Amino acid sequence: MNLQGIESYLHREIPITAAMGVRVESYDEKELILTAPLEPNHNHLGTAFGGSLSAIATLAGYGVIWLEIGHDQGHVVVKDSRLRFVRPVEGEIRAVCPRPDAGTLAAFRKRFEETGRSRLTLSASIGDGAVEFEGTFVAIR
Amino acid sequence: MNLQGIESYLHREIPITAAMGVRVESYDEKELILTAPLEPNHNHLGTAFGGSLSAIATLAGYGVIWLEIGHDQGHVVVKDSRLRFVRPVEGEIRAVCPRPDAGTLAAFRKRFEETGRSRLTLSASIGDGAVEFEGTFVAIR
Repeated sequence: MNLQGIESYLHREIPITAAMGVRVESYDEKELILTAPLEPNHNHLGTAFGGSLSAIATLAGYGVIWLEIGHDQGHVVVKDSRLRFVRPVEGEIRAVCPRPDAGTLAAFRKRFEETGRSRLTLSASIGDGAVEFEGTFVAIR
Repeated sequence: MNLQGIESYLHREIPITAAMGVRVESYDEKELILTAPLEPNHNHLGTAFGGSLSAIATLAGYGVIWLEIGHDQGHVVVKDSRLRFVRPVEGEIRAVCPRPDAGTLAAFRKRFEETGRSRLTLSASIGDGAVEFEGTFVAIR
């Protein structure tokens, strides 16, 4: 699935992401980057709303797993998440979710193929550390 | 501020809450209850999107603090949050945020009045325990 395909998939399947203006900026061996403009996501202080930040970080985690297993190969659900809001995000929201190392990914995929169920904990950072996210996701065939 | 007032304030100041269809169902001495329909907040599985659930729980926390100190008396920001997604939310999203006990609230207000800054940790539950949220909020005059 290419970047445009992921973006269309998100907007169609999770409609609030269209209202938020979520874009897929890039995906490579290193990381997935999602963005959203501040305008539809601002809070009462004119900075990014914590709920939008949480949503985008969660989406980045989904995205890394979809790209890993193929979004038509199984469900992905989030089991738990933790967020630290270190400082306000005052412009475009940009969430970077690094791909885990090759060994972790191989073990995740092996479990998924063998048992039809596998979990992975991912981190994401928004605004160069303004928000730190960690979430545990489960892929189910 | 009455319930309609809070709802208008949310939709105006945090526009994504209007797209999400967030409503203030009730507020009393015991708790604040926010709701949102599933339709604009569903995910790729047809259940409530984790990001929307996180956003509504965060809003419920803001709401309890605004109602406590008056939304024109200071800023409220969220410092950190933790979510556990126990089971899917398959219908209307309904977030219940209990008010802390009287002693905790009195201490929170006293610190706010004396120092202009005070923090409070709040819990919220969505769908009778389907999602459990805990967040730490800071009010700043």
